[in-house]
Amino acid sequence: MTSVLIKDVALPWGEKADVSVIGNRIAEIGRRISGEHEHVVDGRGCLLIPGLVNTHTHAAMTGFRGIADDLPLQEWLEGHIWPAEKEKVNPEFVYWNTLLACVEMLRSGTTGFVDMYFHEDKVMQASEKTGIRVWAGEGILGVMEPVDRTLDRVKSLLDNATELARVIVTPHSVYGCSEEELVRAKEFAEERGLLLQIHAAENMTEVKEFMEKTGMRPVEYLHAIGVLDNRTMIAHGVWVTDQEIGLLKEAGASVSHNPESNAKLGSGVAPVVEYLREGVNVTLGTDGCASNNNLDMVQEMRTALFLQKALHKDPSCLKAEQVFKMATENAYRTLGLDAGIFEGALADLVLVSLKKPHMQPVHDALSNLVYSGSGSDVVMTMVNGRIAYDGERVLGVDEQEVLEKVKGFWE
Amino acid sequence: MTSVLIKDVALPWGEKADVSVIGNRIAEIGRRISGEHEHVVDGRGCLLIPGLVNTHTHAAMTGFRGIADDLPLQEWLEGHIWPAEKEKVNPEFVYWNTLLACVEMLRSGTTGFVDMYFHEDKVMQASEKTGIRVWAGEGILGVMEPVDRTLDRVKSLLDNATELARVIVTPHSVYGCSEEELVRAKEFAEERGLLLQIHAAENMTEVKEFMEKTGMRPVEYLHAIGVLDNRTMIAHGVWVTDQEIGLLKEAGASVSHNPESNAKLGSGVAPVVEYLREGVNVTLGTDGCASNNNLDMVQEMRTALFLQKALHKDPSCLKAEQVFKMATENAYRTLGLDAGIFEGALADLVLVSLKKPHMQPVHDALSNLVYSGSGSDVVMTMVNGRIAYDGERVLGVDEQEVLEKVKGFWE
Repeated sequence: MTSVLIKDVALPWGEKADVSVIGNRIAEIGRRISGEHEHVVDGRGCLLIPGLVNTHTHAAMTGFRGIADDLPLQEWLEGHIWPAEKEKVNPEFVYWNTLLACVEMLRSGTTGFVDMYFHEDKVMQASEKTGIRVWAGEGILGVMEPVDRTLDRVKSLLDNATELARVIVTPHSVYGCSEEELVRAKEFAEERGLLLQIHAAENMTEVKEFMEKTGMRPVEYLHAIGVLDNRTMIAHGVWVTDQEIGLLKEAGASVSHNPESNAKLGSGVAPVVEYLREGVNVTLGTDGCASNNNLDMVQEMRTALFLQKALHKDPSCLKAEQVFKMATENAYRTLGLDAGIFEGALADLVLVSLKKPHMQPVHDALSNLVYSGSGSDVVMTMVNGRIAYDGERVLGVDEQEVLEKVKGFWE
Repeated sequence: MTSVLIKDVALPWGEKADVSVIGNRIAEIGRRISGEHEHVVDGRGCLLIPGLVNTHTHAAMTGFRGIADDLPLQEWLEGHIWPAEKEKVNPEFVYWNTLLACVEMLRSGTTGFVDMYFHEDKVMQASEKTGIRVWAGEGILGVMEPVDRTLDRVKSLLDNATELARVIVTPHSVYGCSEEELVRAKEFAEERGLLLQIHAAENMTEVKEFMEKTGMRPVEYLHAIGVLDNRTMIAHGVWVTDQEIGLLKEAGASVSHNPESNAKLGSGVAPVVEYLREGVNVTLGTDGCASNNNLDMVQEMRTALFLQKALHKDPSCLKAEQVFKMATENAYRTLGLDAGIFEGALADLVLVSLKKPHMQPVHDALSNLVYSGSGSDVVMTMVNGRIAYDGERVLGVDEQEVLEKVKGFWE
């Protein structure tokens, strides 16, 4: 069993301690832990946090970072993103660009991500190679392919699932699948005991067009057809009524909030304050790199705070601890991870340096992380007890090769 | 004369070139420049941009980073910030905490800043020591000190002004000074040929209370008393009417937009799209570290974009090039710097690495900087032809000593 001792590190609640990791769990937290460990990490001047989880992304879209910004939504999608996907996306592209995403995520303190894209077998391979957790969701788009054919691929993903690389059922959206297809996807998820994630209520146009077609709003509809329960995560949830917030709460469903993508695409600002007030479980995601344009969950936390405060004109409407929970505990709850900083917890751990000038002085280390830092302040990321990023490089891959391969798709 | 050759670097408009700096100016931009240079900088894999200018901050407030977040405005000010200032602020505190700010700014690509605080002689010393440009503004607060006494200190600042450390006249606000005091400050600025900066229309409470007292809105009032002209910068300008936007445009005044501070304090979102549409010169600032909580102008550009797009629900309402101009050219115009990337320009230059995973692939280097990067991607900052940050450390100071001294104020 691997063992790592992190010495003399600041914990999120202020205390300093040593943290001993044996196998994939935290064995002990205390002052001056002795005993042999394979690796000893110097935690002085650093903050230890539980791993950040990105609950909504399309990892392979790192390849499309910066290909088109600042455009009206339809022009962006139809004139740039869809054509680029049509031309570029194949298993090789997904593999190497997802590897790039995994490298970026591990370097910025993300220990797991929920993905929704194509060729998810390659996403699972990239996760295994770099040692990051994934919930791989093969996009179910009834408008493109019969749902049962997609579900066949999901079955083969399940055959290859591992401790780190798991599977999630991801029908694209209420407009990308028929009612029958959505119900079929949900039934499949239930049969296999899997979570389900679906885009919903991302922008006003979607809601308006869907209402014209069905007379119902997206979340209301998902409830009506029986897709909404405590194994369901909706991605975005920007345009929901109070009644729909009530339905999400009642169902025990989660909302993956994607503030940067929602802002950059002009979709709007999700009612996070209202979700939390009603007790809906809100998690945090970056969405893909074509609409963000990075996978930095530290920056995502800060943007979530800025948008709510600016919108509500109230600096106290959302607090740093609350978005930090969204990026950690709230995600663990939905995904079924017993991670955290306590004895016996799964050892998904991130070491953040507080030594750089922009992180000094340290009156409140967690505030410095959320309000002053970025993913670039991460100096060690451990997933499932194994150091995946050591402050210099992501250990499972040749980072230079990944960058070269990614570049190669455009030459 | 010092000379630096930056080899094989990407320019913001896509081209690759060598850039030769002789003395404090760009001597030549071209392919394969030869000739002896004191320093040769390898620009491969990097983007060269003109220096970012932070047009509104209170640099010494780095010392208050994270002392109080997420609180209602009055509780934050009266319960935390003012008491901390009363207890801590003295010349020593301002000197060391401004040094920290200068180090943070140079490390994140800022080559100049407009400051408004107390003991600005110390701010000018910190600027000289680290080699960053400053426009030092001794805060004029009629409610605390007779204006002429403050102006006496401004005169002695002027006696010590240098090429890098200049002086600006900074009456605090329309509520912190009487009409007579504001007019006196403006007259003084005119006599000395100085710029004037003043906080105005930052939040709704300020505007409401000022209207109750005077029947006028802050910007309207500044116009009425003759303080608004093309040597005036207002900081914030969040709550202005169309008529006031017209007055700012007519006067040729500038607005220093501080999106992160305005968001974090719940002040709101300034009408940047409207300002630009009417042709008002908008620049960018971070405000102090108690309300931001960093001095990272790269992140500030991104937040400016996110807030406008989210508010207007329009991804095309503000573009990356426009905020990049706000952080560079628009500031140069107001401050009278002929910086930029052209032959003969003042050599305030910043080298941004595009090599990290989150900056790859490079479809559009400027997009990667604004939408994917942060100040931590800066690997060289040059001010006035001199390398002030070399990618490892800020050369003019012992960074470790600065961090120790800053910490010492709290022990």
